[in-house]
Amino acid sequence: MKNIITIDHGSGGQLTSQLIEDIIVPSFQNNALNELKDGAILINQEHPLVFSTDSFVVDPWNFSGGDIGKLAICGTNNDILMAGGIPKYLSCSLIIEEGFLLDDLKLILNSMKETAKACDIQIVTGDTKVIEKQKGNQIFINTSGIGFLKRKTSYSYKEEDVVIVSGSIARHGASIFMAREDIQLLGEVHSDCAPLNEQAKNAMGIEGLRIMRDPTRGGVATTCIELIEQTEFGMELYEQEIPIDLDVKTLCSLLGFDPLYLACEGRMLAICAKEDANKMCQALGQDAKIIGKIIKSHPKELHLKTKLGATRRLRKLSGQPLPRIC
Amino acid sequence: MKNIITIDHGSGGQLTSQLIEDIIVPSFQNNALNELKDGAILINQEHPLVFSTDSFVVDPWNFSGGDIGKLAICGTNNDILMAGGIPKYLSCSLIIEEGFLLDDLKLILNSMKETAKACDIQIVTGDTKVIEKQKGNQIFINTSGIGFLKRKTSYSYKEEDVVIVSGSIARHGASIFMAREDIQLLGEVHSDCAPLNEQAKNAMGIEGLRIMRDPTRGGVATTCIELIEQTEFGMELYEQEIPIDLDVKTLCSLLGFDPLYLACEGRMLAICAKEDANKMCQALGQDAKIIGKIIKSHPKELHLKTKLGATRRLRKLSGQPLPRIC
Repeated sequence: MKNIITIDHGSGGQLTSQLIEDIIVPSFQNNALNELKDGAILINQEHPLVFSTDSFVVDPWNFSGGDIGKLAICGTNNDILMAGGIPKYLSCSLIIEEGFLLDDLKLILNSMKETAKACDIQIVTGDTKVIEKQKGNQIFINTSGIGFLKRKTSYSYKEEDVVIVSGSIARHGASIFMAREDIQLLGEVHSDCAPLNEQAKNAMGIEGLRIMRDPTRGGVATTCIELIEQTEFGMELYEQEIPIDLDVKTLCSLLGFDPLYLACEGRMLAICAKEDANKMCQALGQDAKIIGKIIKSHPKELHLKTKLGATRRLRKLSGQPLPRIC
Repeated sequence: MKNIITIDHGSGGQLTSQLIEDIIVPSFQNNALNELKDGAILINQEHPLVFSTDSFVVDPWNFSGGDIGKLAICGTNNDILMAGGIPKYLSCSLIIEEGFLLDDLKLILNSMKETAKACDIQIVTGDTKVIEKQKGNQIFINTSGIGFLKRKTSYSYKEEDVVIVSGSIARHGASIFMAREDIQLLGEVHSDCAPLNEQAKNAMGIEGLRIMRDPTRGGVATTCIELIEQTEFGMELYEQEIPIDLDVKTLCSLLGFDPLYLACEGRMLAICAKEDANKMCQALGQDAKIIGKIIKSHPKELHLKTKLGATRRLRKLSGQPLPRIC
């Protein structure tokens, strides 16, 4: 590893994994942290808790379909859900750059309020810091959240388990890219940024559920690799089954992005038993689709069956192709 | 209020209060948040939780007596204690500026590890973001924490209740100032940055305890004002009883700082019944001192009895006299 932190360490790809797994986690060794899920499960309680944290540094802070406030609530709320918890309490910590407009802050706080209401989560504690001009980037928000464990999930896969996505992918990453580069020619791409409460709660009620994850930073490809790399299984995705809206597809082909690596912020992946596939699709809503399966050949590898019938191995990104999206 | 965020909004003084009370809290209305303590108490559980969050943006990140890692653990750990909880779990969210040295990150993580051990708290979940050069300031750390409520405290003062401080004040603020301005002539002023677990647990065992608070940003004066402004009582401090070490005293008189407004990061204030004053001093350690009392005259006002026998009203700072210390 290089001896300085580079922007690639934050990409969600290979270097991010290395930084977290080689440097950070070994510093803090404990069972809850070692699982590397989106949220820690604190099991030595009568009512086990799910605890999660995320800092949001998205640039620009407002974009089509949301803003950093909405994102900061959805992000931690959804992480708790993906860990099998029902979100209940949030903290909100603001780091604001000197010179930020108070009216913009009010807009962001209002987004947070509205989104928290939609998630049925309470913001119960907070902190506010102001930093000097040019020592920050307008506004950063950390939210941390507590939920109560409803469904313990695990990597207990079986061969032929199905991989289901709740809707079209890559919208958030595409939206941020357009907002950042101020690309007008294609119209607006709306972010998918949204709470996953209803879908996740439905999914938790299905017996064959193995695990849930929201494909945020690093996109569907990185998330799917993370879902298998600690197991003895592999995964196969079917390119033609992966839902991608036309506007996102057009943007990606024009600019040479692979939508499989673009973030979603309102979609979830569920892995479940083959026999519960239909139930799970219903649970995740009308746009849900089976996009892949768990395989025994090629353990720890993610393979894409392309539309042309070829097979391509997908790996974690080793660079930083995209603007920050969290 | 001005229409932009200024550095004074982060000073811990008057403008910080206004920002939080007029803009932020009304956005998120709920009982836990409205109390404006250092941590939220989540009472609708069998075992009530204490939940707290803090972002640390101290500049420079290392200073005599600690670094941002030690501070980030002590800060949230101590906030949980002050709210009457026994700290148990922490999250750690890093925002790192591109170009930061990996060896420095390792130093910080090691401080966090050692301090967490001293606090008997587990870091169970985390997040890592990297931001572009000049869009941050080396490293920011958010820690959020969960504890279990041991002692419910409140502003239930009685006249003649005593105000006790656990040790000499203003060391942290003075240390950060010297590190930031690279002042060498006085030798080093060590920060008091430290966990308060033992003292706070002792204090929670004393029946006459009313409330605890650590006088961080804004110092003893601001914290004392916050301790009375929501009540019908006032407070009187005795200048000659307030412990200030000679090195800090010298620095303050040379530079014109008022040590009453300089932060501590390893001291606590306890308000308790007069009859338990001696017990409380013992609980808080050999350096603890009675520095003031609750009064009925002058409700919501903080008065300082000076060494010369005069009385001076202390108010929240309306400017930003000091470097960021959190």
